[in-house]
Amino acid sequence: MPLLESLTDALRVLPGVGPKSAQRMAYHLLQRDRQGAGRLADTLARALADVRHCARCNTFTEVEVCDRCLSPLRDPALLCVVEMPSDLMVMESTQAYRGLYYVLMGKLSPLDGIGPRELGFERLIERASDGVVQEVILATNFTNEGEATAHYLGEMLRARGLRVSRIARGVPVGGELEHTDLGTVAQAFVERRGW
Amino acid sequence: MPLLESLTDALRVLPGVGPKSAQRMAYHLLQRDRQGAGRLADTLARALADVRHCARCNTFTEVEVCDRCLSPLRDPALLCVVEMPSDLMVMESTQAYRGLYYVLMGKLSPLDGIGPRELGFERLIERASDGVVQEVILATNFTNEGEATAHYLGEMLRARGLRVSRIARGVPVGGELEHTDLGTVAQAFVERRGW
Repeated sequence: MPLLESLTDALRVLPGVGPKSAQRMAYHLLQRDRQGAGRLADTLARALADVRHCARCNTFTEVEVCDRCLSPLRDPALLCVVEMPSDLMVMESTQAYRGLYYVLMGKLSPLDGIGPRELGFERLIERASDGVVQEVILATNFTNEGEATAHYLGEMLRARGLRVSRIARGVPVGGELEHTDLGTVAQAFVERRGW
Repeated sequence: MPLLESLTDALRVLPGVGPKSAQRMAYHLLQRDRQGAGRLADTLARALADVRHCARCNTFTEVEVCDRCLSPLRDPALLCVVEMPSDLMVMESTQAYRGLYYVLMGKLSPLDGIGPRELGFERLIERASDGVVQEVILATNFTNEGEATAHYLGEMLRARGLRVSRIARGVPVGGELEHTDLGTVAQAFVERRGW
């Protein structure tokens, strides 16, 4: 196969990139931005060689255990479970949480063949059972798959005698009922708190 | 900078890829498709090293002069000018053309700093002035930029005494007037042919 075709083909591993945009990307890389293309090839190869998962929280890192897991300023009694490193970054940005994390690197998705084994639920159970963790906070998304993941994990963790909580679902801060979808308003009513 | 961030950054050289999708791509490459990611890094590096421009038609190739330019079955008196290699492939698919090509690898786009010099118009003029070419067929797109490119090239080529033509613009084959945009119908009227 000509190299140009191989490159177009190889670019299709990128999520959301079809044949047309792969071809456009190949042209662009070879014609308009060879320097950027070289940096991409090089960085990708280095990332594949050196980026691994933190032995404790499972997020992407270049060392055995990441800085966050080693920090003495963190409360080791709290363990927050998120789907992806980007979710961890969002939680960090809130500055509302000072505990530790476990990053699933995905969510239960039976149709894609991603089950508890693929997500390494056993590793999370083991991590949460270190005798130091007092509460596991499930912060997966409120999508169908995120909810299913939280339900499954909740059952497993409670069966080990661990305290489990779920971040709250409801009307967004600053949100008006009139502009909030009905399902959310209904949930906010069902999950109302004493006042 | 952590390698994961460098990779997200490097992915943004791809056209149409913003910070969010670059991050999604980086996760996907490192987590879900390491094999495909390795193939991408490798193919991109090889393509950057080995893919060049044909010395005659300027399209992407891995040799000095591409097979199409060397073919004795082609009519060397006809030279068709297209914007990109993908346009060349479309012309070839029609099986209506048996001459040779010149691929501009772009179009005039003053706002992006792409002028006659960047597109190497001099090389095209030289190519078309080999004494064998009898007619230059301008097959750039009917966008504003493609039209401007065709006008500019037409003037330059005619000034060298070359015969120049432009592919026809009009109602698409199988097209109904009711479902064709008005500008196209108007042009089809203005450029009507004897019948």
